[in-house]
Amino acid sequence: MSAYSDLAARFSRAAAISNAIGILHWDHAAMMPKGAAASRSESVALLAVLRHEMVTDPEIGDLIGEAEAADGLGEWERANLREIRRAYTIDTALPADLVAASSKATSVCEMTWRQARADSDFAALLPSLSEVLSLQRQAGEAKAEKLGLSVYDALLNDYEPGGRSAKIDALFDDLADFLPGFTEEALAVQARRPQDPPLEGPFPVETQRALGVRLMAALGYDFERGRLDVSTHPFCGGADNDVRITTRYDEADFTSALMGVLHETGHALYEQGRPAGFMGQPVGSARGMSVHESQSLLIEMQACRSREFLDFAAPIMRDAFGGSGPAWETEALWRRYTRVSRGFIRVDADEVTYPAHVILRYRLERAMIAGDLPLAELPTAWNEGMRELLGVMPPNDRVGCLQDIHWPSGGWGYFPTYTLGAMTAAQLFAAAKSANPDMLPAIARGDFGPLVAWLRANVHGLGSLYETDELLTRATGSPLDASHFKAHLKRRYVDEG
Amino acid sequence: MSAYSDLAARFSRAAAISNAIGILHWDHAAMMPKGAAASRSESVALLAVLRHEMVTDPEIGDLIGEAEAADGLGEWERANLREIRRAYTIDTALPADLVAASSKATSVCEMTWRQARADSDFAALLPSLSEVLSLQRQAGEAKAEKLGLSVYDALLNDYEPGGRSAKIDALFDDLADFLPGFTEEALAVQARRPQDPPLEGPFPVETQRALGVRLMAALGYDFERGRLDVSTHPFCGGADNDVRITTRYDEADFTSALMGVLHETGHALYEQGRPAGFMGQPVGSARGMSVHESQSLLIEMQACRSREFLDFAAPIMRDAFGGSGPAWETEALWRRYTRVSRGFIRVDADEVTYPAHVILRYRLERAMIAGDLPLAELPTAWNEGMRELLGVMPPNDRVGCLQDIHWPSGGWGYFPTYTLGAMTAAQLFAAAKSANPDMLPAIARGDFGPLVAWLRANVHGLGSLYETDELLTRATGSPLDASHFKAHLKRRYVDEG
Repeated sequence: MSAYSDLAARFSRAAAISNAIGILHWDHAAMMPKGAAASRSESVALLAVLRHEMVTDPEIGDLIGEAEAADGLGEWERANLREIRRAYTIDTALPADLVAASSKATSVCEMTWRQARADSDFAALLPSLSEVLSLQRQAGEAKAEKLGLSVYDALLNDYEPGGRSAKIDALFDDLADFLPGFTEEALAVQARRPQDPPLEGPFPVETQRALGVRLMAALGYDFERGRLDVSTHPFCGGADNDVRITTRYDEADFTSALMGVLHETGHALYEQGRPAGFMGQPVGSARGMSVHESQSLLIEMQACRSREFLDFAAPIMRDAFGGSGPAWETEALWRRYTRVSRGFIRVDADEVTYPAHVILRYRLERAMIAGDLPLAELPTAWNEGMRELLGVMPPNDRVGCLQDIHWPSGGWGYFPTYTLGAMTAAQLFAAAKSANPDMLPAIARGDFGPLVAWLRANVHGLGSLYETDELLTRATGSPLDASHFKAHLKRRYVDEG
Repeated sequence: MSAYSDLAARFSRAAAISNAIGILHWDHAAMMPKGAAASRSESVALLAVLRHEMVTDPEIGDLIGEAEAADGLGEWERANLREIRRAYTIDTALPADLVAASSKATSVCEMTWRQARADSDFAALLPSLSEVLSLQRQAGEAKAEKLGLSVYDALLNDYEPGGRSAKIDALFDDLADFLPGFTEEALAVQARRPQDPPLEGPFPVETQRALGVRLMAALGYDFERGRLDVSTHPFCGGADNDVRITTRYDEADFTSALMGVLHETGHALYEQGRPAGFMGQPVGSARGMSVHESQSLLIEMQACRSREFLDFAAPIMRDAFGGSGPAWETEALWRRYTRVSRGFIRVDADEVTYPAHVILRYRLERAMIAGDLPLAELPTAWNEGMRELLGVMPPNDRVGCLQDIHWPSGGWGYFPTYTLGAMTAAQLFAAAKSANPDMLPAIARGDFGPLVAWLRANVHGLGSLYETDELLTRATGSPLDASHFKAHLKRRYVDEG
């Protein structure tokens, strides 16, 4: 067996464990009775350790060197080797005691956070969050040393391979200049819109589910390799060849769960469309979190909040629920699906105000990692930032700096990928439309074939063959910039609003 | 860490893997989209290998010797050590190449069997079944040598630790003498019963499910540590602290699925009632397959096909489906649930004719393992046996010797546990009733508390503390004999029929 084949076999084994973990996570969220929580944690933790032992085996380091020195590998195999080296470098960067300490600290901090958020009591979270921050910083330093990056970029790299804060700063500064004024403008346009009558429910869960399934099928989701279920926090997960999404229904309002299903379907199309021949190999994996988020947002925000999509979907929605009247017309549903509002909560934000939430968190987490913002001052800095970027002031920390689980759970460096994803989605969708002028008209006919084919060819089917910048340049002609996102917002919320 | 603690920690880790495998199996049967089959097999096979490596580590052999030589272990720890040695002996008995060959052969044979059964073509199965039989014999020989048992007893021992065919012969010969005449008698009594009107459906799945849940709750099933779902082949599975059962609904007839739910609930009560302090340890496991089957049959056959249970359940069933008329009366439902009929199919058989199906298979598999019955002669021997034991002659092999998966899948030695379980159930239930004369009257009131408390104290909570014979002697005053089962059948099908 060649060194490369040996590596590929090892990573296939590791993927078989990851697949088991993925299904156990899905089950935990969607199926598991609560009395099983402790046993389940033990099983998942053990599988994670076994997987970690596999992918950090020192023999892998030798095999990588050997494989890199060998001739005759094709483009995909060379890219796989690059991704294997990347994974091995990251996975072996942290000493075992730091991994264990971080795992324990985030577990404690998450539990504390649930109560602190309920009580809106930041002081109660401060000690355990300080511990998490300190360990995140140590982890970042250890990775930074191996990767030759800054500490923050080393953390970011876990979610956004090759991502650099210098570039993000430029992109986000551009947006941060643009958004406050633009939001005012969009709200002014919106104020002149007609008032729509409410959609009268109730909307039975079974009907909502059937409608979701119908639209997922229209988008090309493969139900032979996935499922739609319910969980408290919607997500896309599961395993290779078993890509499951979840949602959460509200019988008083179907619109939010339905758009959530379409969002997760965007993630799922990416997962299902990865290169079959490299499933389980690092090069067969999704490229990173910003590209992943771009796929959900491209489907949700770019495609499915368009008038064209609603031309197709409005009659289906109306018929499914037996609705009638002006509230069910395309224009009324489109206005509902493009409503802008300044709020405190990121996950409830519309696409115009969402970036402000993200830019705030990105700036704050960079400052905290750098030691420039003492943790005790986070609530004040948060509220200041909200006022400056969004023009609102949270009345308490529960709807302020305590709202997200990312920091307590050790996900420092994750936040920017949301807005990088939104910008990437706009840029990809613009390229897709100009590659095929029939793309939006087809969607109005319920035909997602042209769009999905373009995504398969330019994103999904490429896995991690290219670095993110190259992927985007090949697909769109240029690296990421904010202009497409801004143009999209202007068109939707001002020109056509 | 003492040698004993080291062993216990290793078996806890192995249990964490088994729990993961259990949930993945459940998911495979109840949830998994079919396109995931190949990936799932890889994951489960890898986890099985990792678990096998853990429990066959040569260090375990040394630790067992060390722990056995140490002082100060309590009764449960000593029993755990005995069960650890038992497991280690079995798990290390087979050379790796034999395990791999068996796994491959059964996998091929199962697939072949599905088609051969559909085609009623025994000749098509013969080559792959010969291979499985040959490997089963080799495995039996390897285990027999380590255990000092006959080859068949060594195979039986995997399912029925401590079980011996000499004892089973005596029990089954006794039953085989009794049953043909008794079945005639029961059928004659049944012929004099009034004809009941049919239960008029349809019976909506959701109502059937709610009814099942209600009765499971009445029996004491803990929904905080389990679930009820749907699968093609009903089973009880899952993990420690997550004991899931499945059923299969038929909207034209609710009675079969409902009794199936109660059967699986019997298994689940055993699993949920195992000693919490030894969960994941060999001594905390169920005692063996005959005791396991006794728990499902005690609930289904002894308790829930009684007039007392139906006094409680008939009005609940009737109200659930909005039924009315004589078909919904206790006596009519009881007659329906105690109908006897000679058929070809084991899984459809009633409790009177079931043992004949099992005794036939037991005698045939012993003869095949011993080499006394050439495989090519199996169909003839099967049909002869059916005629002799049950008085019917299968018209083809599909409803004859091709009906069960056990032999193709390598489960030689499993069959006798069904009828040992039925006999054990009768003996345990007789003891429970005489320990507490209110037990059946309580069931008529819907109160399973006394019965389940007795089972917890005498069976469930003991795990594998005692060998099967001792468990039964402690609980009932004597080792297993057929008299209680025969007395039960006589009372139900003749005296009170």
